[in-house]
Amino acid sequence: MPYFDAASAAPLHPVAHQALLASLDEGWADPARLYREGRRARVLLDAAREAAADAVGCRPDELVFTPSGTHAVHTGIAGALAARRRVGRHLVTSAVEHSSVLHSAAAHAADGGSVTEVGVGRLGAVAVGEFAGALRADTALACLQSANHEVGTEQPVADVAQQCRRAGVPLLVDAAQSLGWGPVDGEWSLLTASAHKWGGPAGVGLLVVRKGVRFAPRGAADEREQGRSPGFVNLPAVVAAAASLRAVRAEAQAEAARLRELVERIRARVAESVADVEVVGDAVRRLPHLVTFSCLYVDGESLLHALDAAGFSVSSGSSCTSSTLTPSHVLRAMGVLSEGNVRVSLPRGTAAEEVERFLEVLPGVVQGVRAELGAPVPEAPRAAAGAGPAVGAAVAAGAVTVDALGKRCPIPVIELAKVIGDVPVGGTVTVLADDAAARLDIPAWCGMRGQEYVGEEVRERGVAYVVRRVS
Amino acid sequence: MPYFDAASAAPLHPVAHQALLASLDEGWADPARLYREGRRARVLLDAAREAAADAVGCRPDELVFTPSGTHAVHTGIAGALAARRRVGRHLVTSAVEHSSVLHSAAAHAADGGSVTEVGVGRLGAVAVGEFAGALRADTALACLQSANHEVGTEQPVADVAQQCRRAGVPLLVDAAQSLGWGPVDGEWSLLTASAHKWGGPAGVGLLVVRKGVRFAPRGAADEREQGRSPGFVNLPAVVAAAASLRAVRAEAQAEAARLRELVERIRARVAESVADVEVVGDAVRRLPHLVTFSCLYVDGESLLHALDAAGFSVSSGSSCTSSTLTPSHVLRAMGVLSEGNVRVSLPRGTAAEEVERFLEVLPGVVQGVRAELGAPVPEAPRAAAGAGPAVGAAVAAGAVTVDALGKRCPIPVIELAKVIGDVPVGGTVTVLADDAAARLDIPAWCGMRGQEYVGEEVRERGVAYVVRRVS
Repeated sequence: MPYFDAASAAPLHPVAHQALLASLDEGWADPARLYREGRRARVLLDAAREAAADAVGCRPDELVFTPSGTHAVHTGIAGALAARRRVGRHLVTSAVEHSSVLHSAAAHAADGGSVTEVGVGRLGAVAVGEFAGALRADTALACLQSANHEVGTEQPVADVAQQCRRAGVPLLVDAAQSLGWGPVDGEWSLLTASAHKWGGPAGVGLLVVRKGVRFAPRGAADEREQGRSPGFVNLPAVVAAAASLRAVRAEAQAEAARLRELVERIRARVAESVADVEVVGDAVRRLPHLVTFSCLYVDGESLLHALDAAGFSVSSGSSCTSSTLTPSHVLRAMGVLSEGNVRVSLPRGTAAEEVERFLEVLPGVVQGVRAELGAPVPEAPRAAAGAGPAVGAAVAAGAVTVDALGKRCPIPVIELAKVIGDVPVGGTVTVLADDAAARLDIPAWCGMRGQEYVGEEVRERGVAYVVRRVS
Repeated sequence: MPYFDAASAAPLHPVAHQALLASLDEGWADPARLYREGRRARVLLDAAREAAADAVGCRPDELVFTPSGTHAVHTGIAGALAARRRVGRHLVTSAVEHSSVLHSAAAHAADGGSVTEVGVGRLGAVAVGEFAGALRADTALACLQSANHEVGTEQPVADVAQQCRRAGVPLLVDAAQSLGWGPVDGEWSLLTASAHKWGGPAGVGLLVVRKGVRFAPRGAADEREQGRSPGFVNLPAVVAAAASLRAVRAEAQAEAARLRELVERIRARVAESVADVEVVGDAVRRLPHLVTFSCLYVDGESLLHALDAAGFSVSSGSSCTSSTLTPSHVLRAMGVLSEGNVRVSLPRGTAAEEVERFLEVLPGVVQGVRAELGAPVPEAPRAAAGAGPAVGAAVAAGAVTVDALGKRCPIPVIELAKVIGDVPVGGTVTVLADDAAARLDIPAWCGMRGQEYVGEEVRERGVAYVVRRVS
């Protein structure tokens, strides 16, 4: 059964499995103790730290193990901000960081700090100049991911690090998605990562603080891990994390090339075989194993369920698959379609045949969901697309208003598509909607279908989105 | 090779080992995902939560998994304090809590809060009335361990909980040492525990917050574990923790009775077979598996090394075995001897023969360390005890001053013992020392040897401790 959600959690690498088993018997004691079991644990811990530091490209005493990538990010940002409090309380991040970074930024703002979120282009990358322009005299810290977790786009980390160095601002790089593929280039100051993203076990994150970078741990003190990560070290998991990082790195170049081709094939074939689809993210400067696309007139949850039933595990940034019913902040920042969103991230070892089978199954699955939702049939004349709007539509001369209040993604867009043929070229369709995804998906639909997005207007209930028919 | 430091970390229970292995293959995916691997992970997580809650005696939705017992304590205290900030910023703890509690209290004080540390009696327990007396109108939280981690003494948690309830103050119970033996009685509000103390894996703590108890998580938000424990859940470890808790509980009654007898035997035999020894902690109201004793004229580090060489792994609260060179805060609070301190905590399954062998070896080991240090020979006439003080001793009429500045534990006490016979009954010995342990160990020596401790006086360098010979 193909599992295509490696960006969320990768199955345990065989080396991690083996190392974990071996160290369960050898590494359960407290490495701070003087007796033989403690000394044995200390030897394992030191070796794991050296191996991880070697893979990162840092000194062992610059690296501590945390209980997760999220802990590494929370601790790293809070500690770096606190240490430079006298410089100022301004934090710069990109708009497409992992939620752990954005939550840290929100906590900083709630505590009286200020935050600048640097936007990204349509492919998901920040512009170096724009990022550098956000750095100020009172900027305490800047954060940039090495590559995006939802669309795979690589960030210009080395160039941004250079700009940060010039400005005297430390840069924290969240390398969670990329560290298994290679070290992060450039003169960054702090780095975070998560073992279960590279095939290591859950329960291990890395926090690297370069020598000379100021750092002041927050919260209750603890003597372990240089005072930067409290709690008893999860040694068997740490040993497994380090061993598997070394193992995936040994295979990284060949495996990256292989998966890169598979993803290339997905990008091309999805665009060909699925109508009304948008493949997002940078096609070249990207993670080797990850691709994201969105399908008009489809809700992500139904799509995920249908793919799951067909045997494929993928994830989605659609609003209907999130507990908050808002679409992915990454897709929003990129300004791309969020409905019917699918992220495919291939674990190491994915067979080409599995990908082929996915590509065979996908068009039918999308079509099935569209049929259930009564979505417009692609290529068919627009007027014949459906049995008329299922929600209230008021037609005036050259203007139609569709009431999609209370309807969730992708219904507002489907209704828009159904009635656009009812207005003459030059006429407008106004969609009333209160679903958060509409703000993103109606403009995206206009871009994909060559219609003009006029704008939005907040109403007493919901928002009115106005679209002009131009073709 | 007998390992007698279960209170620090217990070897993995076979059930934990088995559950961990099984869930490495089944439980690596994100339990928040909708596909089959995620659903499977969710089922495992829910079952583990139910099992753990059952063992604690709480509702599953009152319990979250944290990355360690330390995280549970830090998070629990910070969250409970923040939620009652309007009531006040006063925190009550006992003086003998685990360092994770005391570090949380220190962080609270550094942040402007106030802390009352309730002292303990010579056996290590708080007095209920004294604890209750520390509760104030502005007390936001009280913390009390279920049993002490260094001396094994049980605290009157149920009675204290009742007093806290009367005062309207939530009580957090650190149950790290006792949860494997049974649930915590009484109407506590919050509870913390650590899996690797009961034979579960590292990487799992429990934080229980009773319904109706106010709680406001600090730091960056995270949607997992009710927003109370950020980061990807370490599911295999969580499953193993819950399974092993259930397993050790099934064996708890019989094993507790068995270990209780072994500890009883250690308490009796050590007192008989080792001269100048103090067995500390409550002999009856105590953890079944733990006993602590201190030996005069011995340094803990040498003792630990000698026992390690003889094949026994134990820990110590002596100053020479701590990185800060201060004796255990627990022994200090109890006012008992800290030098030559040994904590024996028996893991489940410890064979009676191992304990016997330890009891056979111990007297010779202590004697060996004493001989190396030139300590007074017990029972021998005092004047013949040594070749005279190795450090400077000035003799006046009826008064001797010993200069032990720069000498570490147990040298100041050894020098005191060597010269006490040189002064007439009624005369005094003044020991100048700058080792932190002297403040605890010189009064303790007086108590053990029936001499009078007159008092201490801070000097330009070090402290002068005055002892009067009364026998």
